[in-house]
Amino acid sequence: MAEWKAYLDSNRDKFLAEFIDFLRIPSISTLAQHREDVQAAAAWLVSRMQRAGLENVEILQTDGHPMVYADWLHAENTPTLLLYGHYDVQPADPLELWETPPFDPEVRNSRLYARGASDMKGNVLLMIQACEAHLSTNGRLPVNVKFLIEGEEEIGSPSMPKWLTNNAGKVSCDFAASSDSAQISEKAPTVIVGAKGTCGLQIDVRTAPRDLHSGIGGGIVHNALHVLAQIIASMHDADMHITVDGFYDNVEMPSPEDREMCARMPLHDDLLRATLGVDSLISEPGYKPIESTWFRPTLEVNGMWGGFQGDGVKTIVPCEAHAKITCRLVAGQQPHDIVAKIKSHIERCTPKGVNVTVSVMAGAADPYLIPAGHPALQVADQALRDEMGYTPVHFRMGATVPILGILKQRLGVEVVSLGFAGLSDNIHAPNESVSLTLYHLGPKVYARFLEVLALSTR
Amino acid sequence: MAEWKAYLDSNRDKFLAEFIDFLRIPSISTLAQHREDVQAAAAWLVSRMQRAGLENVEILQTDGHPMVYADWLHAENTPTLLLYGHYDVQPADPLELWETPPFDPEVRNSRLYARGASDMKGNVLLMIQACEAHLSTNGRLPVNVKFLIEGEEEIGSPSMPKWLTNNAGKVSCDFAASSDSAQISEKAPTVIVGAKGTCGLQIDVRTAPRDLHSGIGGGIVHNALHVLAQIIASMHDADMHITVDGFYDNVEMPSPEDREMCARMPLHDDLLRATLGVDSLISEPGYKPIESTWFRPTLEVNGMWGGFQGDGVKTIVPCEAHAKITCRLVAGQQPHDIVAKIKSHIERCTPKGVNVTVSVMAGAADPYLIPAGHPALQVADQALRDEMGYTPVHFRMGATVPILGILKQRLGVEVVSLGFAGLSDNIHAPNESVSLTLYHLGPKVYARFLEVLALSTR
Repeated sequence: MAEWKAYLDSNRDKFLAEFIDFLRIPSISTLAQHREDVQAAAAWLVSRMQRAGLENVEILQTDGHPMVYADWLHAENTPTLLLYGHYDVQPADPLELWETPPFDPEVRNSRLYARGASDMKGNVLLMIQACEAHLSTNGRLPVNVKFLIEGEEEIGSPSMPKWLTNNAGKVSCDFAASSDSAQISEKAPTVIVGAKGTCGLQIDVRTAPRDLHSGIGGGIVHNALHVLAQIIASMHDADMHITVDGFYDNVEMPSPEDREMCARMPLHDDLLRATLGVDSLISEPGYKPIESTWFRPTLEVNGMWGGFQGDGVKTIVPCEAHAKITCRLVAGQQPHDIVAKIKSHIERCTPKGVNVTVSVMAGAADPYLIPAGHPALQVADQALRDEMGYTPVHFRMGATVPILGILKQRLGVEVVSLGFAGLSDNIHAPNESVSLTLYHLGPKVYARFLEVLALSTR
Repeated sequence: MAEWKAYLDSNRDKFLAEFIDFLRIPSISTLAQHREDVQAAAAWLVSRMQRAGLENVEILQTDGHPMVYADWLHAENTPTLLLYGHYDVQPADPLELWETPPFDPEVRNSRLYARGASDMKGNVLLMIQACEAHLSTNGRLPVNVKFLIEGEEEIGSPSMPKWLTNNAGKVSCDFAASSDSAQISEKAPTVIVGAKGTCGLQIDVRTAPRDLHSGIGGGIVHNALHVLAQIIASMHDADMHITVDGFYDNVEMPSPEDREMCARMPLHDDLLRATLGVDSLISEPGYKPIESTWFRPTLEVNGMWGGFQGDGVKTIVPCEAHAKITCRLVAGQQPHDIVAKIKSHIERCTPKGVNVTVSVMAGAADPYLIPAGHPALQVADQALRDEMGYTPVHFRMGATVPILGILKQRLGVEVVSLGFAGLSDNIHAPNESVSLTLYHLGPKVYARFLEVLALSTR
């Protein structure tokens, strides 16, 4: 057995204790009253990284919450790997739904329950533990490593793009690994290879200066809700295909290999239906529902309103109507281009004499897909196979992980998402928890990842 | 000059004073704290009718506010006319927008300002004054008359249908006249010959037990707002034609005479646009906007909502969506039949696996249209022509006057709407007022109406 592996095995109790310690800090980035807790978590990390033997450990101030940086750069002629994570957590309310207090961690049935257990304090720690195992047993790391752990992920990483642009040299690397990621199961080692992008807009329809009596304006003045319904209804055809002109430009058909990988997922339609709580699933012809989630962009109205919403009846022709729309984008699509195309579509659908305003929403994110066959992916695959004993799967998310596109765009590097959360950990919800089996597997996979990476580039 | 006319002219000051007196009573039917005021107004009316020489004057209790009844039935071999009105008024708020207090009537520029001045205490009084003029000068009325003045019109006449059914004999008549009506101008004497009916329903769409993350449910689970938008959009075609199967069954095309009457209205498109505050009007092909209001039924969404309505972004697939719809119906359409047809349409538009509930709203009302050439209409025309000096117009309302359909349905009689409000009197709004010229014209037209009616049936 490798010495680093023995080190990790013999320190399991210590690693569990430090995990609990770290989780006690309520580093909720979105709540102003937890500002000092966020700073305390950053300081805790600095101390932990220093103890691990990492170098140049420092707190990096941003316009918001600080980042924590560390490195070890003495492995000549090997690649430099950027390890990304975040130490901030979501708010814990509603508190009454927690079985045990969110910041008073408790182990039950080989799981650790606390806010941040899955998302993602354990994942931050296990990357540090992996480095510590090498440094303690061998005095060195197999490759060069830089850590960048932010404190604003749960509020959308607002400081990150600017900081990366201004500090690109400091975090220059050959590629990056993010442990803000999950395993499908212990028998399905997982790399997340892609996540969707997102963009959004709000539509505001105005047809008259005020609501009109339906006996006076009815039938002769545009009803803002009719106009909005027509616009919204025009965006999908009967096959659930999005009809916005050019929406699918540059969207590639999945390859047979892509579909094969998708078919390996243990997410059959029955399970999907049960998980979502619905009796029936829909999808574009030619795509199974799970394939839609993996390969196809979406356009969803998230909210729509106008006119009278109270009890009873109010016989008006409403003069205002509103809708919020967000899209999930796949590789090849760009948020600003898609927003422009939706705007054009709306303009074409707007009747003469009706005023429709389209506002672009903040928070757009690029889609991300690591190129198939990228060396980092092969290294991650081997590390997972070696430590978990099964052929890894390459998972594509229907959701958005903005940091992936941001790292790609600002640093020009690819990112493997390799983390040890589970798929049913109640992240962002009461009773968040994580499997301790996965928590203790994580540092082994990361330690092996560094080792394989060094071998692969020798 | 007829003696009754001289009587009316010589009593103008007294009639203005009693109008002001009646308007001082805040008989707001919808506010519990004005219950005694409503009763005071009924008592005031009883006294006024007795002074006029009417007989059997009494207060009729209902489940809600009382009605006031009176009659004079000694004109043998003449028709019996039911005179309808209401003595209750709308609330006066927002009070700060009134130039003078709503229940402290003031004359400015030959108009009387007060809540109820136009809608419709003056119209009630002028029918009584007309009878008083005949009774005082001739000792008798030209025809038999029954008065039924209710106190619940502004809350939808909830007690009226049941009361009429139980007391049909008491108010049996040959036809009815309602003075809850208006004149287009002094040069366009007006009978309102039709009002639209109404019916309404609420649509509730449910697609899943809870809102879903758009990265997880997007594209594979029905979005309740998409389904609702499709349903709403499907109800009109590009020509503003309502596509609900059978919606126009029994709706008659306007005759050339109907269109000619409509064209006589001094409501040109420019004026209509200015009144409604819009730059452009719409209407079904083949119908001018004013013709749409007169002749065509409408289906309007009054309110629609679902999903996230707050600031910012919430990337959900909403599981619920709601819409309120009301129709304005024309002669030949029946509220319950139209609701059933809309329900069927919605069922046909509902995708498999989606739950859509349709609830029928209270407050349906039958459309009303007095048959062209009805004798009462001819009598009203002649009275208007004789007293106002211009050819009368027959106006059709886009709005609903439930009492017309109720009287027709419960008593089996036709109703002429002959009243002396104006079209810009701010009814139901601050600074309600009425033209005193019309107020003093009203009793003359009604007195002449009774006279012509007697002559026409001799």
